[in-house]
Amino acid sequence: MQPPYLLFLGDVQDQLAAKTAHGLKDWRPERCFGQLRLPGCKADVGLPDTSVEEAARAGCKTMIVAVANSGGWLAEHWIPSIVAALEAGMDVASGLHQRLADIPAVAEAADRCGRELFDVRHPKHRFKTGTGIKRTGKRLLTVGTDCSCGKKYTALAIERELLARGRKATFRGTGQTGIMIAGHGVAIDAVVADFIAGAAEWLSPDNEPDHWDVIEGQGSLFHPAFAGVTLGLIHGSQPDALVLCHEPTRRHMRGLPHQKLPGLRECLEANLAAARLTNPAVRAVGVAIDTHRLDPAERSAYLRQVEDELGLPTVDPIATGVGRIVDALS
Amino acid sequence: MQPPYLLFLGDVQDQLAAKTAHGLKDWRPERCFGQLRLPGCKADVGLPDTSVEEAARAGCKTMIVAVANSGGWLAEHWIPSIVAALEAGMDVASGLHQRLADIPAVAEAADRCGRELFDVRHPKHRFKTGTGIKRTGKRLLTVGTDCSCGKKYTALAIERELLARGRKATFRGTGQTGIMIAGHGVAIDAVVADFIAGAAEWLSPDNEPDHWDVIEGQGSLFHPAFAGVTLGLIHGSQPDALVLCHEPTRRHMRGLPHQKLPGLRECLEANLAAARLTNPAVRAVGVAIDTHRLDPAERSAYLRQVEDELGLPTVDPIATGVGRIVDALS
Repeated sequence: MQPPYLLFLGDVQDQLAAKTAHGLKDWRPERCFGQLRLPGCKADVGLPDTSVEEAARAGCKTMIVAVANSGGWLAEHWIPSIVAALEAGMDVASGLHQRLADIPAVAEAADRCGRELFDVRHPKHRFKTGTGIKRTGKRLLTVGTDCSCGKKYTALAIERELLARGRKATFRGTGQTGIMIAGHGVAIDAVVADFIAGAAEWLSPDNEPDHWDVIEGQGSLFHPAFAGVTLGLIHGSQPDALVLCHEPTRRHMRGLPHQKLPGLRECLEANLAAARLTNPAVRAVGVAIDTHRLDPAERSAYLRQVEDELGLPTVDPIATGVGRIVDALS
Repeated sequence: MQPPYLLFLGDVQDQLAAKTAHGLKDWRPERCFGQLRLPGCKADVGLPDTSVEEAARAGCKTMIVAVANSGGWLAEHWIPSIVAALEAGMDVASGLHQRLADIPAVAEAADRCGRELFDVRHPKHRFKTGTGIKRTGKRLLTVGTDCSCGKKYTALAIERELLARGRKATFRGTGQTGIMIAGHGVAIDAVVADFIAGAAEWLSPDNEPDHWDVIEGQGSLFHPAFAGVTLGLIHGSQPDALVLCHEPTRRHMRGLPHQKLPGLRECLEANLAAARLTNPAVRAVGVAIDTHRLDPAERSAYLRQVEDELGLPTVDPIATGVGRIVDALS
């Protein structure tokens, strides 16, 4: 996916639906040229509103469908904008469930204009099954008590901090937004079950001994729908370091009112036990708490409490930064 | 898949390649009419050798490609037999990776003759993600220290024993051979990772309170390639009862010489801990050992040793039967 990007927001009805666009704007602002919004769009990532023609004239190389629609489907009335981008000479990328390549008008336009379509949730690579054979280089994986509790954000913050310190590091995206931000990666939950660990092995290949792959975790070992994805990702990543992510106001597992959250220690122990299968030397290096829903007075008390309980550097990546976790990465 | 079946063995070079045919012959002999072998075939499941024409005349409804070829591909020179079966009025089923429906000559013949193709490794059903919500009825899942250590055989033996005692039971196949034997099921390792648990939930729906679903386990929580599949299957199955399967002469995890096997207790504890997430009442009800590679003098000593160590009824499903395990199913 070649930058600069034009971010297509369609006419989604809230900011949450533009999660991918926000992620790109926050983490790769230098690649984002503008946003394209259709009439009625209620999301705004704060980039200049730009038409397809303006973006193409200014040298944009890729239009990114940077929104999540209900069910992962592309709205019919978005198709003309996508075709227009292809006709203006841009490639188009999407992280929706529905493939761009499966929409006849889009496939035809891409073909006719000689442009590329990137369906980032649908890996083209043919993975092998995992082997568990140890690879060179170092790996950090973010794990969580639940889905959507800061695993991507924490991994990106750690990559940024490592790079700022002149260390060698690469963020490895495993979900739609993470892949868009990295420009490559594997939507690990879209891989055929037999190949989860194999895909994770492929994602962070052999590297220099002092290089850190910082891998975006997915799901949770305690989520009854997605724990298989989480476990395969842990085994294939063979992490040297785990960071536990948690959102303290969550009352039940995401989407499942009957399913309670695990305790932090229980969750950390289960992740370490799982990770030891492919890397007996794995250790926990920190805890990342998303405290934005706590009131400011509670925040530092909560962070201190978790730090005392688990005996690990405990940070909020946004409020306090991840420096204390990175200090622990030798 | 309507019986009677004609089992197609192609020209495979050993009995192991005919694993599916052997499974069908052993467990559903009443459905198996004959075997079709091409010149040079070195497998033999002991059924009468039968041509397509004879089988069709005798009322065979389905020809099953009952062999596993290297890589899961269908040999070019098998295609004429498949086309002949379709032309003779039979449906054709296969558990290979390659879809029958993707082979133009086969798809064309099925279409022309109005026959059905069953690609059992490729579920047509669109699964939902799992919910972890408890279903009615009882469930037993076989789990193992490794792949290929008796999980399917044990589950089938337990179903047979339950039925022989007049109890309500259904074997639920999760792999190619198991599905062929059951006539339905889900190839759980072929499902997209996001839906492993959801597919397992679909496989054993709500049932009568005294009905046992006996679910074929897959992989092992300690196999670095496949543990994600195993965990999703455990969570979606929400078993009331686990049976641990083990092959005592195995020196390393299947296909991975560097990966040692887990201890039996360690393995059982990990499976119970995982299963508690969706069924806190899960318990271990027995151990099934495949002792056929031990010499007869060692067998009973080994079974006794495991029984003492784990405090659970320990059987060899072939040598001793599974009666003592079924005794524990209330």
